[in-house]
Amino acid sequence: MSVNQLSFDELAERVRRAPYHKWLGVELTALDEDEIEITMPWRDEFLSSIDPPYGHGGVIAALLDLAADFAVAARAGRGAPTVDLRVDYLRAAGPGPLRARGRVLRLGRSLATAEADVFDQGDRKVATARAVFFMGKA
Amino acid sequence: MSVNQLSFDELAERVRRAPYHKWLGVELTALDEDEIEITMPWRDEFLSSIDPPYGHGGVIAALLDLAADFAVAARAGRGAPTVDLRVDYLRAAGPGPLRARGRVLRLGRSLATAEADVFDQGDRKVATARAVFFMGKA
Amino acid sequence: MSVNQLSFDELAERVRRAPYHKWLGVELTALDEDEIEITMPWRDEFLSSIDPPYGHGGVIAALLDLAADFAVAARAGRGAPTVDLRVDYLRAAGPGPLRARGRVLRLGRSLATAEADVFDQGDRKVATARAVFFMGKA
Amino acid sequence: MSVNQLSFDELAERVRRAPYHKWLGVELTALDEDEIEITMPWRDEFLSSIDPPYGHGGVIAALLDLAADFAVAARAGRGAPTVDLRVDYLRAAGPGPLRARGRVLRLGRSLATAEADVFDQGDRKVATARAVFFMGKA
Repeated sequence: MSVNQLSFDELAERVRRAPYHKWLGVELTALDEDEIEITMPWRDEFLSSIDPPYGHGGVIAALLDLAADFAVAARAGRGAPTVDLRVDYLRAAGPGPLRARGRVLRLGRSLATAEADVFDQGDRKVATARAVFFMGKA
Repeated sequence: MSVNQLSFDELAERVRRAPYHKWLGVELTALDEDEIEITMPWRDEFLSSIDPPYGHGGVIAALLDLAADFAVAARAGRGAPTVDLRVDYLRAAGPGPLRARGRVLRLGRSLATAEADVFDQGDRKVATARAVFFMGKA
Repeated sequence: MSVNQLSFDELAERVRRAPYHKWLGVELTALDEDEIEITMPWRDEFLSSIDPPYGHGGVIAALLDLAADFAVAARAGRGAPTVDLRVDYLRAAGPGPLRARGRVLRLGRSLATAEADVFDQGDRKVATARAVFFMGKA
Repeated sequence: MSVNQLSFDELAERVRRAPYHKWLGVELTALDEDEIEITMPWRDEFLSSIDPPYGHGGVIAALLDLAADFAVAARAGRGAPTVDLRVDYLRAAGPGPLRARGRVLRLGRSLATAEADVFDQGDRKVATARAVFFMGKA
């Protein structure tokens, strides 16, 4: 029996719901026992610089945040606003789809801590983040 | 004499340059001795939820990152990649333009530390961030 | 009328109470409307390196954490455990007393966000931090 | 052949060297290919509160920082000052020895990113941290 409170289809629907997520094009691509995976296709509007062409750190931060957030949602059965987010950028991301994996570090009644990694097409880790989420009434 | 190495027009042009910045619509609106101000108009694609309508944390993270980054660029005369970024979300941001103010905490030869705040239309601080930037050759 | 819920003497007594605080030697030296100040005398056990002699980042992190925490306690009237702490080290601290100033960024029913700066004897800022505190029942 | 540039005995000697580390009592207890382990015995001066008795977050932050730092030192063959440190506290640590495991996320010529976890006697993870270190000339 899974510790997850949402099915793949339920979580996939929630991932698509936000207008900003629709614009990013993010899709749930795996819901495992311990991790979720979200894939984001490339858009030229993601560029931070053109020569050389790099993806913008703000887009990567959004992908990390939502992957950590939906890892919490999978386990808790509900969304939770981000209290704080800390991103480490490990290497520049060139144009191309990105893949994020999110996992829960601690799920409490009031707060959750989660982390996520983002990988490029060559499976190189380009960034990693940790975040705290507010789970509701204290 | 200003400690800034770039004029308002030079910095404004750089703020507009990135394709992601064009999409966000960000514009330099002030370049003071100690701070820069960047204004971002509203787009419906920024929404994280529709009912109630909230701006997405990832868009706010991008605005904080670029305000801190261009505060460094104003003083150093050149851009610098983000090493890490830490965002505290203080309140939900409803639809409407956002205004960011960035300032340098430390400008070194190899590294810079800067911070930025984001305010909503009612001048309420909705989020604040600190970031480290790499000033040398990557 | 002050927004603070504790008097100087009440807060000063709480600052001294923890065994680790006794060892650090920290003392409340100011309780203003917006900020508190905590002073920490020097101990040779604080050294991270001997030649050149630098204070240890872990000691500075503790001072930042407790200055932010007691800024919250002054306003809330009660202590609150640290959820997360993020420290930026701005310059090496040589031997000598350190002074921390803490202030609240947001005081909510469930969570508080606060920040603190640490200054050396020459009033140079050596480090700065932000932290989230849990205000409810754990 | 190991990717580590220091032997167990060389790293163990460096871990003991700082006066603050002597006071903490930290000892290197493992140097693996990917991780180092540092063990810290209990001292009553570590207490943050007496009833119930909890270890102080500042002591845990120091242990996390040094475990991440020496994971970098093992790989790089030299020490590196901490640029920033971000700690997530996951549960209260009661009295008793703590064990930290540190690992490198990225080792660059100018900067390194590393992380560490701290475990209590019951092998519960009590805190986790990430940090950036400055590796020298940019």
